[in-house]
Amino acid sequence: MAPKLAAEFLGTLWLVLGGCGSAVLAGAFPEYGIGLLGISFAFGLTVLTMAYAIGHISGCHLNPAVTLGLVAGGRFPMAHALPYIFVQVLGAIAGAGILYVIATGKPGFELGGFAANGFGDHSLGKYSMNAGLVCEIVMTFFFVLIIMGATHGRAPAGFAPIAIGLGLTLIHLISIPVTQTSVNPARSTGPAVFVGGWALQQLWLFWVAPIIGAVIAGVASRTLWPNATTPVEGK
Amino acid sequence: MAPKLAAEFLGTLWLVLGGCGSAVLAGAFPEYGIGLLGISFAFGLTVLTMAYAIGHISGCHLNPAVTLGLVAGGRFPMAHALPYIFVQVLGAIAGAGILYVIATGKPGFELGGFAANGFGDHSLGKYSMNAGLVCEIVMTFFFVLIIMGATHGRAPAGFAPIAIGLGLTLIHLISIPVTQTSVNPARSTGPAVFVGGWALQQLWLFWVAPIIGAVIAGVASRTLWPNATTPVEGK
Amino acid sequence: MAPKLAAEFLGTLWLVLGGCGSAVLAGAFPEYGIGLLGISFAFGLTVLTMAYAIGHISGCHLNPAVTLGLVAGGRFPMAHALPYIFVQVLGAIAGAGILYVIATGKPGFELGGFAANGFGDHSLGKYSMNAGLVCEIVMTFFFVLIIMGATHGRAPAGFAPIAIGLGLTLIHLISIPVTQTSVNPARSTGPAVFVGGWALQQLWLFWVAPIIGAVIAGVASRTLWPNATTPVEGK
Amino acid sequence: MAPKLAAEFLGTLWLVLGGCGSAVLAGAFPEYGIGLLGISFAFGLTVLTMAYAIGHISGCHLNPAVTLGLVAGGRFPMAHALPYIFVQVLGAIAGAGILYVIATGKPGFELGGFAANGFGDHSLGKYSMNAGLVCEIVMTFFFVLIIMGATHGRAPAGFAPIAIGLGLTLIHLISIPVTQTSVNPARSTGPAVFVGGWALQQLWLFWVAPIIGAVIAGVASRTLWPNATTPVEGK
Repeated sequence: MAPKLAAEFLGTLWLVLGGCGSAVLAGAFPEYGIGLLGISFAFGLTVLTMAYAIGHISGCHLNPAVTLGLVAGGRFPMAHALPYIFVQVLGAIAGAGILYVIATGKPGFELGGFAANGFGDHSLGKYSMNAGLVCEIVMTFFFVLIIMGATHGRAPAGFAPIAIGLGLTLIHLISIPVTQTSVNPARSTGPAVFVGGWALQQLWLFWVAPIIGAVIAGVASRTLWPNATTPVEGK
Repeated sequence: MAPKLAAEFLGTLWLVLGGCGSAVLAGAFPEYGIGLLGISFAFGLTVLTMAYAIGHISGCHLNPAVTLGLVAGGRFPMAHALPYIFVQVLGAIAGAGILYVIATGKPGFELGGFAANGFGDHSLGKYSMNAGLVCEIVMTFFFVLIIMGATHGRAPAGFAPIAIGLGLTLIHLISIPVTQTSVNPARSTGPAVFVGGWALQQLWLFWVAPIIGAVIAGVASRTLWPNATTPVEGK
Repeated sequence: MAPKLAAEFLGTLWLVLGGCGSAVLAGAFPEYGIGLLGISFAFGLTVLTMAYAIGHISGCHLNPAVTLGLVAGGRFPMAHALPYIFVQVLGAIAGAGILYVIATGKPGFELGGFAANGFGDHSLGKYSMNAGLVCEIVMTFFFVLIIMGATHGRAPAGFAPIAIGLGLTLIHLISIPVTQTSVNPARSTGPAVFVGGWALQQLWLFWVAPIIGAVIAGVASRTLWPNATTPVEGK
Repeated sequence: MAPKLAAEFLGTLWLVLGGCGSAVLAGAFPEYGIGLLGISFAFGLTVLTMAYAIGHISGCHLNPAVTLGLVAGGRFPMAHALPYIFVQVLGAIAGAGILYVIATGKPGFELGGFAANGFGDHSLGKYSMNAGLVCEIVMTFFFVLIIMGATHGRAPAGFAPIAIGLGLTLIHLISIPVTQTSVNPARSTGPAVFVGGWALQQLWLFWVAPIIGAVIAGVASRTLWPNATTPVEGK
């Protein structure tokens, strides 16, 4: 179990450092910034790279909602869910911490949103709480559906990291303006710890909505793929 | 058949929600928007992700023109075409509906084109009806040709979703200014239902042209790949 | 031989229609245009998609320099080179022709450079003829080196289209400002026929330089991969 | 050994010519430039393309830090490290030299930063030396971790070049504003030789930090993947 937890810790650290880091450091860089498109690729590539690197250790969940969705779909043992989620959150906070150290090395740095997720006044596009709820539920539903299908025993072997990583890219291409895109409670918790205030007050939505979407996808997957029993927890 | 139809419904929903959603929510976001390049990736990635997730269930057509092109090429049974097309259109309308719910959560939201396809005054670049017809026929012809070839028994196994998904990205990189790119009658129908008026009046072109291009590609494929009999309808 | 020539014709048509089409129709679209980055992806994806679709028919050269480089490397029979090159050039002209029909459907369309290759005053960045020569030779050298290595019997099977297609994307990311990037005499000939004048006068460079680079790579590959005899001409 | 060294020389030449070349020639091209996003893709694609082309010859390190990280992880023989590093540096200088020849073909060309790495006043975003140190150590740590995991015998075969190449893209998406991104002492040395002055004075950081990060990752990998003995040095 120790290598699995170490892998989930490092992987979630990388997801937050890479995804949020691209947004904070390079997203709005004057004239040449990578914009929402570059941030979307960054988030997706954190998962793609880690899924190839540590997928064979831990299954590379990096996301409490994914872990619970896999439990709901009968693809991951409930008993392992809590330790997985615990180290995912720790890794996310560590990733945000390293990003903080780097980001403050710029003269005149201001924390700003620090890539934390939000709704209403704290949504990039000022989308309402209800829009955020619907969006996070639906996006996580499809994210977990992609994971379920692409890791299924009948899907082409080896390609799941591409489908899942670029699936996360796609989800960001759609929904950054709505909530800055979470679909991942750990990813939301990391920067919220440093931003405090509103980010912690709104954090509940980014635990509740992704988990709802993920669990519905897990349950639905039992109907779509009746005999899918491939565990998603490394080898 | 039920899981296949459920898969086609969900997949086409995702194509419209993801592709049109990226355009409506993030395409023109001030300063950092994903632009036509990001929208092109979004459309392609909806197909890439779903092809890995549900390709082994239904073949992942998500597109009435593709379904009919595969019939013309002898790769899909005519008897299944109508139910496939029916749930594809339903899924597309559902996807546009979910997008509508999210998009209206932004204060001051205006429907605008809502990513519907059009020509003449309703083409992004004001391209004529004839240009739109030629463009949609030719683009769908090559899209179906890519599908035929990449799913052929002699093509490398497992890579078809990459070729097909990124093929759709490429088609958008070329032709969004001409018609906002359809090559898919279901994708055109989804937003048109919400826009009404001109979008419904011009909808005929986005059924006729893609189907013509797809059927020509299906017929041509019988010459290019004489013995291609691999069915494209899941396992 | 007929299916091979038909495949090379269609593939080169797609390369010019898709690559040059993305530049002409969407490259400089006001505010949201795909820019040099999007054009680079478009060119690369024409090759990636066709390599999966028709690679098993003809080897998917789509490029006289590639065909001659493969001959120089002992991977393609000299006797087939001339017919391949002939249909590649025909396909490129046909692709430019279809693009012309679509592009003129825009009110007030002006031909401009029409994505033709050039140097000096006709280079996007006004690069000199010598810079263009060096750039095209070196870029084609590496392009053919990638092709030689990625299609080698010891390289991972099935991935060559990704390496080669994204290799062409990379080459465009580097060199569009220098010559609008050719590395392919057929691709240069297509639009030059429609632009005439300077484009035809400068066309010699885009035949000479890519072929020099490709042949050097072919010869060098005999040293790097001593026993590479896998033919690149379909199955 | 000779083909391995030739491959490492050519591969590192391509990395610098392609990555730095995209930045110098196309990064800030007026209006349509590829920006930090395009430069990130270019660097990553140099590695992706070469890993498929020459991975089966030399293992495709192209980077002294990677070579030493693999040594630390027990995946590459110490005795081969010095010749590998020597030709990597030679290749990087040659790549910068070819880029210089092409770049000076533009009327009014000014050398500027020439894509050299730097910190403090010579960081794109004026990030401090400490931020640069932390950033380069952490980024190289994860880069080598991805390499270790994706080339592990239990990872899906053939996909490592995608994970590693796009991993380098991701690292650039995060950290170009901090140091212009090195994670590779050879890549830093190439342009520094042409820029001279500050670039040579700051070069030490881009040897020290990447090697520290890489060696830590190599040592850590012995715990994460206890029985990983697959050599990364071609076949």
